Amino acid sequence: MLIVGERINTFKKSVMRAYEQKDTEFIRQEALRQAEAGAHVIDVNAGSDIDVEPDNMKWAVEIIQEALDLPLCIDSPNPDTIKAGFEACKDKQAAWANSITLEKERVDNILPLVKEHQCPVVALCRDESGVAQSAEERVEVGKKIVDAIDRYGIDLDKLYLDPMIEPLSVRGDGGMMSVHTLLGLKVALPEIRTIISLSGISFGLPERKLLHRSFMPMLMYAGLDAVFLDPLDTLLMQSVVASQALLDQDEFCMNYITASREGRLSS
Amino acid sequence: MLIVGERINTFKKSVMRAYEQKDTEFIRQEALRQAEAGAHVIDVNAGSDIDVEPDNMKWAVEIIQEALDLPLCIDSPNPDTIKAGFEACKDKQAAWANSITLEKERVDNILPLVKEHQCPVVALCRDESGVAQSAEERVEVGKKIVDAIDRYGIDLDKLYLDPMIEPLSVRGDGGMMSVHTLLGLKVALPEIRTIISLSGISFGLPERKLLHRSFMPMLMYAGLDAVFLDPLDTLLMQSVVASQALLDQDEFCMNYITASREGRLSS
Repeated sequence: MLIVGERINTFKKSVMRAYEQKDTEFIRQEALRQAEAGAHVIDVNAGSDIDVEPDNMKWAVEIIQEALDLPLCIDSPNPDTIKAGFEACKDKQAAWANSITLEKERVDNILPLVKEHQCPVVALCRDESGVAQSAEERVEVGKKIVDAIDRYGIDLDKLYLDPMIEPLSVRGDGGMMSVHTLLGLKVALPEIRTIISLSGISFGLPERKLLHRSFMPMLMYAGLDAVFLDPLDTLLMQSVVASQALLDQDEFCMNYITASREGRLSS
Repeated sequence: MLIVGERINTFKKSVMRAYEQKDTEFIRQEALRQAEAGAHVIDVNAGSDIDVEPDNMKWAVEIIQEALDLPLCIDSPNPDTIKAGFEACKDKQAAWANSITLEKERVDNILPLVKEHQCPVVALCRDESGVAQSAEERVEVGKKIVDAIDRYGIDLDKLYLDPMIEPLSVRGDGGMMSVHTLLGLKVALPEIRTIISLSGISFGLPERKLLHRSFMPMLMYAGLDAVFLDPLDTLLMQSVVASQALLDQDEFCMNYITASREGRLSS
């Protein structure tokens, strides 16, 4: 399971404040702590205010890549911000473009950059009309995204398809829709990797971490390959290690046993 | 999800000692604490030493049914002990017979008692040759058990089929075999309820509770109806509540939100 650390995101007030006050040390520590906790990639989001976002993105990318050596995931709804983030990246091939959808503006603006750098790209199973209401329709959108990536001459192993999560507080079957879309993607597009933004499931509900650590085993059963999550959530990270053993993805449970010996599994 | 509290079992040394010393208060407290923690049924196991087991079973049943008003699950590999347990039960229709297999001795000795009382019965998907190595074969055994129950004139809604768990420490696909058997049973026998003894997954591994609370969401996704577990394992019980919401089995997440308000979901 590939872990993308989600903490440097302006949905958190403390991160928003760090951007406003140009608090270098805060951003640096957030990146380092996530790396130490097991993140393989660090997501960098700089808000959605297009007046300041590209500059903030560059600023954050420069701080983080000086602090550590992990790939960065340049996260924005605005193509201009993604371009600004990539300009600041030293290793553009390792950086991720996050995200495209099937919307023309995002495809046309971001896929040329992905093609140029042959870098990983996250694609949400969503088109101009929004998020489809059935798993089958989302899978169809996924297929069209694969076609678009292919037409651009981008290797399909660079693509991470996101089946989308709608919060349980919005629709009771929000979790199951994601699981069924994942299972459908694995049947229709068995070679394409999948990713999901875990915390979407729990918006508006209490004890959000409990929902995250309980949902993760189901998503992993459905074939999830990568995930945006908070790696500082210890019980959640433990559930990932345990799920790998339960899913027979950990030969002789050696990773599980090693994690236990290192004291990483005690609650 | 129907919770059968598993704690009164001689696999625990403290329970074994309570039987040896006839420690009434210990047994009483174990039953009461499980009921308070949310068990719907209390399993009663009195070991496997046929010389003392039937008497111990009677003794425990009498203590527990005086302490509380929940159904008891009379748990033994020995038909004579199950009979002794039922003799001591005041409400024989509510008590569970745990368990039969497709082995002739257990069918012939226990099903007449189940028929007489029309009580719930747990059946392990296992025959004379042991536990089958594939999910498909276990489902076939399940079908034969359903036939046997039906032939005896026992209502099929009294049956709980156990797909069996083999520990991850014995076979890496032990967890997935249980999940695939559950899914297969739900297809082949959609009206038959299922049960599993959760702690079987973790024998021989460290941090066993972590495996239990991570496996539970997968089993519930696969359609599990009832489970033997330790209801005093707070994080595990929380994962059951969360999984019900995630599986769209908790309208408007009301049970989840209520549990949170009552402080039952904080870790």
